Amino acid sequence: MGTDDQRPMDKSGKLMLRHQHTIRVRYSETDQMGTFYHARALDWFECARSEFIRRLMGLSYAEVEKRGVYLPVIEAFLQFLGRARYDDLLTIDATLHRPSPARLRFEMEIRLTGNGLPVVRGWTVHAFVDVHGRPIRPPKWFLDLLERAHAQKS
Amino acid sequence: MGTDDQRPMDKSGKLMLRHQHTIRVRYSETDQMGTFYHARALDWFECARSEFIRRLMGLSYAEVEKRGVYLPVIEAFLQFLGRARYDDLLTIDATLHRPSPARLRFEMEIRLTGNGLPVVRGWTVHAFVDVHGRPIRPPKWFLDLLERAHAQKS
Amino acid sequence: MGTDDQRPMDKSGKLMLRHQHTIRVRYSETDQMGTFYHARALDWFECARSEFIRRLMGLSYAEVEKRGVYLPVIEAFLQFLGRARYDDLLTIDATLHRPSPARLRFEMEIRLTGNGLPVVRGWTVHAFVDVHGRPIRPPKWFLDLLERAHAQKS
Amino acid sequence: MGTDDQRPMDKSGKLMLRHQHTIRVRYSETDQMGTFYHARALDWFECARSEFIRRLMGLSYAEVEKRGVYLPVIEAFLQFLGRARYDDLLTIDATLHRPSPARLRFEMEIRLTGNGLPVVRGWTVHAFVDVHGRPIRPPKWFLDLLERAHAQKS
Repeated sequence: MGTDDQRPMDKSGKLMLRHQHTIRVRYSETDQMGTFYHARALDWFECARSEFIRRLMGLSYAEVEKRGVYLPVIEAFLQFLGRARYDDLLTIDATLHRPSPARLRFEMEIRLTGNGLPVVRGWTVHAFVDVHGRPIRPPKWFLDLLERAHAQKS
Repeated sequence: MGTDDQRPMDKSGKLMLRHQHTIRVRYSETDQMGTFYHARALDWFECARSEFIRRLMGLSYAEVEKRGVYLPVIEAFLQFLGRARYDDLLTIDATLHRPSPARLRFEMEIRLTGNGLPVVRGWTVHAFVDVHGRPIRPPKWFLDLLERAHAQKS
Repeated sequence: MGTDDQRPMDKSGKLMLRHQHTIRVRYSETDQMGTFYHARALDWFECARSEFIRRLMGLSYAEVEKRGVYLPVIEAFLQFLGRARYDDLLTIDATLHRPSPARLRFEMEIRLTGNGLPVVRGWTVHAFVDVHGRPIRPPKWFLDLLERAHAQKS
Repeated sequence: MGTDDQRPMDKSGKLMLRHQHTIRVRYSETDQMGTFYHARALDWFECARSEFIRRLMGLSYAEVEKRGVYLPVIEAFLQFLGRARYDDLLTIDATLHRPSPARLRFEMEIRLTGNGLPVVRGWTVHAFVDVHGRPIRPPKWFLDLLERAHAQKS
């Protein structure tokens, strides 16, 4: 597997990291169809990203913002593959890619925890901006944390 | 100013103003019981307050915050009296009281627009705080706008 | 009925209808970045679809569901193009397409009402299912209402 | 301690049970003031009730509803005592009371997990209704589970 695996890059030179997070469907997230309201999947993606950053990078996204770096969603895609109901446990698999120097991309898969049936698949693309929403260069400390996260996993 | 009715005060010397606002129940606000998720009533109260301030005070609450004045909810009470379903039109009656110099109190009644059946009754109490959440004295310009609103109604 | 343009079809034989809807950003839809929380755009899409169906098809989506027909979102895409803040008025342009016999596709553009600056662009794809979530053939009465809507516009 | 303590009743003959639950503030739950949007506290109360019922009664509230018993909120009260921010851990203390034969009452206290600072205090009152929203007598199996829960704790 060589040295490439020790760097957070896939074959095309893009960074890749994985993390798994579990949530439970809240009553407030259901709608009158008896399953979850579709938009809530984006809230769950965000929960998974928060845990991803905390666990793999060793600081919270709250701390990232305190350092003046914001990672707003600039694109999102969602495919709804199956039902999930109130109180169901969901497993969210998050994979981080770096499609270009100034972008992060989280690929997400949500499944029923028990039987693994697919619920939602999708992704979000994030820019690096400052507190005023202006694009910034990804800060070195942030990229270093990503690199270290990958090194520790491999 | 003459009689009590020309000043924005009720019998106990408290300010009182009324406004009516209409909203439609969103699909995202339903839950698996087939009616609205109870917490959404607080969102609707907030919509009614926003319109109340815009219509009666002649500026938006967004502008109030831009001037450094925040009116967070510090207490809320809700009674759920009847069902409302997706796409139902709701009429919200908002009455503003001033129970003490540093507090505002909005009394709310939500009814089905068509038949007037009661849906929610409740109230919220608001403090005056600055951007850091510290209590402030209600600014004179704010109170003047309230007084003028009452004068125009009577 | 004459030319193709008088029938609810685009050049490729797909149905097309347009409708515009206006909403105001709620305080509850903001987040700590000071703009709207991105997932709320899907709630707004849904509001625009509800009004689209009511205005162009002459019945509410609530009535569509009462007749046993559900149109769940099976795919969604969102591009976030600009900021919108609490109390901003937003204009949502919805265009309905019929990419295949058993699918509806709503293309959405959200702009600031005042200056027309783009906020969100995206689309949702919908299947026809019954109350148990099983795919059904689009009912004739539904397609007839779509046809009639187009005939009336042209 | 006597025998009273072995039954789920307080001095006035009312049932009492306690449970603690922890949640983390989601980004989607913040608003432009930089803290949580106040209505989200009712969503958190609901999460704590769900865990309360699962842990103390040994079945999920989803299962309670499957047996035809619904416990809608008919009254709610909230006091907002302090700030909580994105990513803060919150500890929710839930105490169940039975103020009358046909009512349940959950008393709630939300604190910052780290320093114990108070965030929200409040309560919700619940009726027993069937799937159509009609009041029903609390079923014996439900009351038996409550009794057993108390017996196990004391």
